[in-house]
Amino acid sequence: MGSLQASAAMSALMGELFPICRSITGDGVRHTLEIIGRHVALTVHEVPSGTRVLDWTVPKEWNIRDAWIKDLSGRRVVDFRENNLHVVNYSVPVRARMTLHDLKAHLFSLPDQPDWIPYRTSYYNESWGFCLAHHALEQLTDNEYEVCIDSTLKDGSLTYSECVIEGESADEVLFSCHVCHPSLCNDNLAGISLAVALIEHLKSLPRLRYSYRFLFIPGTIGSITWLAKNKERLPRVKHGLVITCVGHGEKFTYKKSRRGDAEIDQIVQHVLTHGDQAFEIQEFFPWGYDERQFCSPGFDLPVGCLMRAPHATFPEYHTSADNLDFVSAKTLSGSLACYRDVITVIEENHTYINQQPYGEPQLGKRGLYAAIGGDSKSAERQLTMLWLLNLTDGRHTLLEIAQRAGIPFAEALNAARVLVHHDLLKPVVTGQL
Amino acid sequence: MGSLQASAAMSALMGELFPICRSITGDGVRHTLEIIGRHVALTVHEVPSGTRVLDWTVPKEWNIRDAWIKDLSGRRVVDFRENNLHVVNYSVPVRARMTLHDLKAHLFSLPDQPDWIPYRTSYYNESWGFCLAHHALEQLTDNEYEVCIDSTLKDGSLTYSECVIEGESADEVLFSCHVCHPSLCNDNLAGISLAVALIEHLKSLPRLRYSYRFLFIPGTIGSITWLAKNKERLPRVKHGLVITCVGHGEKFTYKKSRRGDAEIDQIVQHVLTHGDQAFEIQEFFPWGYDERQFCSPGFDLPVGCLMRAPHATFPEYHTSADNLDFVSAKTLSGSLACYRDVITVIEENHTYINQQPYGEPQLGKRGLYAAIGGDSKSAERQLTMLWLLNLTDGRHTLLEIAQRAGIPFAEALNAARVLVHHDLLKPVVTGQL
Amino acid sequence: MGSLQASAAMSALMGELFPICRSITGDGVRHTLEIIGRHVALTVHEVPSGTRVLDWTVPKEWNIRDAWIKDLSGRRVVDFRENNLHVVNYSVPVRARMTLHDLKAHLFSLPDQPDWIPYRTSYYNESWGFCLAHHALEQLTDNEYEVCIDSTLKDGSLTYSECVIEGESADEVLFSCHVCHPSLCNDNLAGISLAVALIEHLKSLPRLRYSYRFLFIPGTIGSITWLAKNKERLPRVKHGLVITCVGHGEKFTYKKSRRGDAEIDQIVQHVLTHGDQAFEIQEFFPWGYDERQFCSPGFDLPVGCLMRAPHATFPEYHTSADNLDFVSAKTLSGSLACYRDVITVIEENHTYINQQPYGEPQLGKRGLYAAIGGDSKSAERQLTMLWLLNLTDGRHTLLEIAQRAGIPFAEALNAARVLVHHDLLKPVVTGQL
Repeated sequence: MGSLQASAAMSALMGELFPICRSITGDGVRHTLEIIGRHVALTVHEVPSGTRVLDWTVPKEWNIRDAWIKDLSGRRVVDFRENNLHVVNYSVPVRARMTLHDLKAHLFSLPDQPDWIPYRTSYYNESWGFCLAHHALEQLTDNEYEVCIDSTLKDGSLTYSECVIEGESADEVLFSCHVCHPSLCNDNLAGISLAVALIEHLKSLPRLRYSYRFLFIPGTIGSITWLAKNKERLPRVKHGLVITCVGHGEKFTYKKSRRGDAEIDQIVQHVLTHGDQAFEIQEFFPWGYDERQFCSPGFDLPVGCLMRAPHATFPEYHTSADNLDFVSAKTLSGSLACYRDVITVIEENHTYINQQPYGEPQLGKRGLYAAIGGDSKSAERQLTMLWLLNLTDGRHTLLEIAQRAGIPFAEALNAARVLVHHDLLKPVVTGQL
Repeated sequence: MGSLQASAAMSALMGELFPICRSITGDGVRHTLEIIGRHVALTVHEVPSGTRVLDWTVPKEWNIRDAWIKDLSGRRVVDFRENNLHVVNYSVPVRARMTLHDLKAHLFSLPDQPDWIPYRTSYYNESWGFCLAHHALEQLTDNEYEVCIDSTLKDGSLTYSECVIEGESADEVLFSCHVCHPSLCNDNLAGISLAVALIEHLKSLPRLRYSYRFLFIPGTIGSITWLAKNKERLPRVKHGLVITCVGHGEKFTYKKSRRGDAEIDQIVQHVLTHGDQAFEIQEFFPWGYDERQFCSPGFDLPVGCLMRAPHATFPEYHTSADNLDFVSAKTLSGSLACYRDVITVIEENHTYINQQPYGEPQLGKRGLYAAIGGDSKSAERQLTMLWLLNLTDGRHTLLEIAQRAGIPFAEALNAARVLVHHDLLKPVVTGQL
Repeated sequence: MGSLQASAAMSALMGELFPICRSITGDGVRHTLEIIGRHVALTVHEVPSGTRVLDWTVPKEWNIRDAWIKDLSGRRVVDFRENNLHVVNYSVPVRARMTLHDLKAHLFSLPDQPDWIPYRTSYYNESWGFCLAHHALEQLTDNEYEVCIDSTLKDGSLTYSECVIEGESADEVLFSCHVCHPSLCNDNLAGISLAVALIEHLKSLPRLRYSYRFLFIPGTIGSITWLAKNKERLPRVKHGLVITCVGHGEKFTYKKSRRGDAEIDQIVQHVLTHGDQAFEIQEFFPWGYDERQFCSPGFDLPVGCLMRAPHATFPEYHTSADNLDFVSAKTLSGSLACYRDVITVIEENHTYINQQPYGEPQLGKRGLYAAIGGDSKSAERQLTMLWLLNLTDGRHTLLEIAQRAGIPFAEALNAARVLVHHDLLKPVVTGQL
């Protein structure tokens, strides 16, 4: 699939998913996964409420049909059907008539951003509430209101899904994204769309060294649940990235894994360094997205987080302004390209061994000067070959050689292929060292 | 004892000790230790002259009753009774009449600081001399003078003392200060006073993890002697600081131990970083105070030197201007507070183990969100808990976690206590790892 | 030999060698080695054409008697006898009459430097050509020319030589320089002359700890050949330097060995740091001079390259402007002095052990204060002694101590000798640790 097609497909998927009211459990997630499943093969898991998962317990399942605040005339002054952010996510059912004064304890708005509806949740503390634009809040008069939240909160299950693309090795690369946010776009429909596009990219490749596992999970409890049910699998996770906030912002942000020097950390930094956009590298810190679970000390997986503007650093975060207009198709495509480049390095970052390590091999007799010509680009390729021959002593990966030589990985890879073709390099077969 | 009381007590002790003529041996030291012993329990040691201590030999004991230079009229133009700095410390006895010309070979002054009397010693080279203000020197006329140094230099002993406060462990923290300087204040009556106040602080604490050993010793030969007599004890010394020049100067100076990365080095740097005064960190160098003995390569103890303006960097150093006025009670109190903070970290810098290391523990169900409230200070405490939970894998001390999180040790300690209370952390018992 | 004599001798040798037409094989090399052999004892090796050396093959031997381009009047418009750079080095024999158009495919000039003749070679690709000043090229008219290259290219041998100065240990220090360049001076007659002067310096020393091996070899194929024939000897090579471009340029350039932290890398950086000229340190890169062979991954010898302006960074490089005028006797002498300083450190960089490591030894009783006096230079010497006593724990070489103390190696060495004399230090005998 070309980039234009991928971009259009990502935009279309975001548009299709946007209206659905998702939460960490319930039919919104199921509906979302059903739509994603039309594009890529998903395995859907249902984990019953009450299941112990690590230190947590799968909560009751939440569903909602409707919610509103009506004035005395019966007019809906706040209406869930207009925007699903209007209801505090996981609100318990309520049907009551109350004064504005009493109601206000359940109303949330953003005085600094009076046109935007905030996004609020109350997953683990049973309560109810409405979110609304501050302008709308100010227009409420000192009368009684009728409120209704037609929700259910009862035993059910938590739903998440996986998509696995099998490669030559059972070693895995893990990608995860959130499916729990309702009508919010950069956080994280953009991430879902990028994940789907990345799966399609991987399936289009002629061979894969690693197996790839994509998690479509609700935030926090989703990764907790997946980790609880996959402890034996975790040693196979060689690299991982959390996909989020990939649709808005000029520059990239990479938050390193807890290890700080994992191969994925080296890879992403390399790709960003040789990309054409600004970027920022963050040391690991124990909050943020699901990397906080993957990188908890008992697991300590090599999982970073590759994003654009990080969560909570842009004003639209967790408000109705994080909508379809907020995400730029061009930005999202650029994010996809970056993830693709990361996958290229993951797949091709082998360790090679120089087969003629004593002195410099005579490149001329192999036509490796002639094959290259005399322009300055060719001279660079020549130097790349010399770097590879000098550092392929088994103690440097191809990425490390590219870093040392100060060249993009792709150029090192091209030179490696030429040298392998001439029997001057051999890759170390994974598992042999 | 509150800080005001401690400050007054330190000033009073300095005032009481100031007039005494101390040296590396003799009754001045004994008298000094006797006064200190009224405040804290001391064990006094007498080591006979001639005793071999490491590469050195305990010298003869020096005592002095009086000394003067009289002009022809019998007037004392230089008088030991006015200031004990007037006599070169360890001067052999002399009684003679001599010309100014001959006398001048025994006179020392500071032309650049003509009002100040310099402080000179001749411990290991038998000679005699007088120190005087350069202005006074210039007023001497070209006549004969009668000189008298009524001293004794003969077999006796070297006197030093120790104060030990026993803690739960036989592992020790070592503090040392000089008791050999005569009427000099910042160097080192301030150090003696701070040591006494620190002992009183330690005795006021409900429990001590470590045992604490304070050395009140003469310079160089004192630490050499103590080391020679305590070789078996040295492996128990886990941390140490030399206390000197703590009464004057705006900023702190910390000279690292020879190891450079000992826990005490980390601790003092942390305390200074989170303090409210400027500071300078110096790498170890093999001269200065007694750290040069503790850090000789055969011992290599983890002993640094925490001071204000370092010796020889202020003009008053080793002159009569280093008097009671030169030391500021406020500065000395600030130094005491800094040493107290260092002790807090020494005592509390445990290694903790996360008891729920797989995924993030659910803080909400333990009331650890609610217990904290919603202000920004509380948010910081929340993040501190997350740092602790993430890094308590047994490979980081609490101090290292505080450093990584960029927070003061005290905040990390508070969070650790809360998490221990909720069975989420357990300290590693010393000796078990 | 004093520096003035050494300087004059180096200039004379360069003058004597300059006219000879050298190449990677042939009588020019033999003649050059014969002249060098009048100054220092050489062992000359002849390796037959066709011999396999590592991944390479010794080429046919090339010799040349004459070469010219004549115009229709019979006048030599390009004449090998005027400048041996006029012929592309390793040109096959040719005798032909051809148009200017056809001839031009074999002519090389430098349009940007129209007065200079470029230096070109074609060692491994049989062809022929002439090099000439661009001004001369432009004066050729559109007529026929007669061309002659009276060369031979046939089985013979590759010639190189070694000079070994035996020291107390069979461990070796390796120096190498090129003898393949024709009338070029900074690259590398200056290097040859410096090598000869260095050999004479080494022979004048009363004792040598190491054995020294100097290679006078053609570029690339020479080091390949030497390495191929000396594989068993290589573990004895403890330090090495490639000598090139030492006669021109204000500052020094040191290119580190592939190891990057070899003792030779520390030594040269130290010498340059405490020298009085600017310098630049380069990390290793796998092209340049013969260090690329010595530092190929199979050998990875501790060999750096100490030069002035590096090759290809000055416009005169590989042109007729790199002539006797281009090399400054003063610069070359300065380079020699630097190499001599490096040898001093190589020879004297022992590890010493403090014989009194417990506490500071009492220097006074050994007269080590008195021996030193009271000026500021003496105070520095005192501190140097304290540094040595503190760091001679067997884990620091004398060079590392000098580096830590921030003093020149020579000062550390002086202090070490005094302390050895007083039985306070003992050198670790090589091979004992």
